[in-house]
Amino acid sequence: MDIHRYLQEKKEKVNSALERYLPKKEKFTLNLHKAIQHSLFAGGKRIRPILSIASFEAVGGKGERILPFACALEMIHTYSLIHDDLPAIDNDDYRRGKPTCHKVFGEATAILAGDGLLTEAFKLMANQPAKDHLSSDGGLILDLINEVAQAAGVLGMVGGQVVDIESEGKAVDLPTIQYIHTHKTGAMILASVRVGAKLGGAQEEILKALSRYGESLGLAFQIVDDILNVEGEADLMGKKTGSDLSKGKATYPSVLGVEESKKRAKELVRLAVDALQPLGPEADPLREIARFVVAREY
Amino acid sequence: MDIHRYLQEKKEKVNSALERYLPKKEKFTLNLHKAIQHSLFAGGKRIRPILSIASFEAVGGKGERILPFACALEMIHTYSLIHDDLPAIDNDDYRRGKPTCHKVFGEATAILAGDGLLTEAFKLMANQPAKDHLSSDGGLILDLINEVAQAAGVLGMVGGQVVDIESEGKAVDLPTIQYIHTHKTGAMILASVRVGAKLGGAQEEILKALSRYGESLGLAFQIVDDILNVEGEADLMGKKTGSDLSKGKATYPSVLGVEESKKRAKELVRLAVDALQPLGPEADPLREIARFVVAREY
Repeated sequence: MDIHRYLQEKKEKVNSALERYLPKKEKFTLNLHKAIQHSLFAGGKRIRPILSIASFEAVGGKGERILPFACALEMIHTYSLIHDDLPAIDNDDYRRGKPTCHKVFGEATAILAGDGLLTEAFKLMANQPAKDHLSSDGGLILDLINEVAQAAGVLGMVGGQVVDIESEGKAVDLPTIQYIHTHKTGAMILASVRVGAKLGGAQEEILKALSRYGESLGLAFQIVDDILNVEGEADLMGKKTGSDLSKGKATYPSVLGVEESKKRAKELVRLAVDALQPLGPEADPLREIARFVVAREY
Repeated sequence: MDIHRYLQEKKEKVNSALERYLPKKEKFTLNLHKAIQHSLFAGGKRIRPILSIASFEAVGGKGERILPFACALEMIHTYSLIHDDLPAIDNDDYRRGKPTCHKVFGEATAILAGDGLLTEAFKLMANQPAKDHLSSDGGLILDLINEVAQAAGVLGMVGGQVVDIESEGKAVDLPTIQYIHTHKTGAMILASVRVGAKLGGAQEEILKALSRYGESLGLAFQIVDDILNVEGEADLMGKKTGSDLSKGKATYPSVLGVEESKKRAKELVRLAVDALQPLGPEADPLREIARFVVAREY
């Protein structure tokens, strides 16, 4: 299969669904809408929504039911980037080659654009067609919302982000780095895979296999991000490279060195692909996404 | 009935449920937990959760099923206060007589404490006992989550907050003030009443009556807040008074004057109480809460 074509097709599907799902513009809140659009359509890779779709389809899921969840995952990811970039947190002026939300719309609007995106993500997941409400699927959907909230919350992404900030400029050990990565990035990547699998009707054993895939992939993804921050081309990344080092960020390369980090990332991708053994060729996109994650240059 | 005793009893119930529902402390994220506790237990009146409980009980709801929703409403309210107080937004150093979250824990942690509270609120609402999942109640609970997210989101509280900020220092007209108040404060107060009524099993006509109550009360509540900001005692309010004026905030007193604003608030409370005509004595707490709102001094 052609992974680049696959990613492109799914990305377009996600982008047009995002356009559809966003609250309509209204007179009073034009700037808020512009700020949300600015960050949501800034050229993201859409890895989380694509993982949820690929996982949904790998277990036999059909149709568009996964799209609200796929889009909610991306909205939550985007809110986290907007808040991360704020002067009080990472103080980044550029992301994906564009000025960050607060540079264009000011800090107050950027904070509220993030708050709005997070809230709309939950609205989108809860706002299911009435037929799903009334069937026993109501329980499944609640379980998925719970899973996403857990991954995004205090014991997930937000927790990882807090530890990341508190570790800046300090000598940190491997358990701390692992905590940061598995929570800040890993939790939402794992949730993306699991939400797709559960909505697609995965049996317990298959869900376990996909969870192992998601865990390994999430950690590999962040290690590669860290390596790209050291070695990547600034114009491909769309932001300054070397910024982790200058901020004294806790990263895999800073603790293990670049070569050892690359070895770990490759090993994790192998583990991710191995975990998919119980799944057939329907899981090929997931296998290719894992390989893409270590091969990517941006 | 003794409204002060009623409010005290319900407040204690909400406080102990909040303690129970918050994510447990863990080694890595102690500061985040402290920041959340600091703001969540800073002596709030718990008006929103109490309204949801009073509304639930007014339509015959029994037991504790309303508590997760009551607490989620307060967590969302608290997140909004933490973010409002940030230097980039209202830049307030004190609230309820205590230093604001960012003054104690720093801006980065305050932003993330708000993000965490908002996310945990949705987790709490979605994380219902399995028996509710599997029954047709799953659909009702999704509808309630949707209602709360709508009230808190881009077309609700967050939208109102954006217009509030953009109106600072400008001459604004009554429609703009009304937009700010019905969205920034009114939407979540209305949602509190409606969530309680829906979960309590209110029929369509009763739900409509309670919605009219919630709309009038929400607007009255904010007008009284504005008046207290002009006339209140700083030590009762626990924050500087007169701050709206010095920031050029769009308020009812600034557009209509204090006397006319008081008249409006009283009229709205009368409308709120009148709306409850189809309800019996079970709705007395709601009637008394409305009267309390205009009589309060803090």
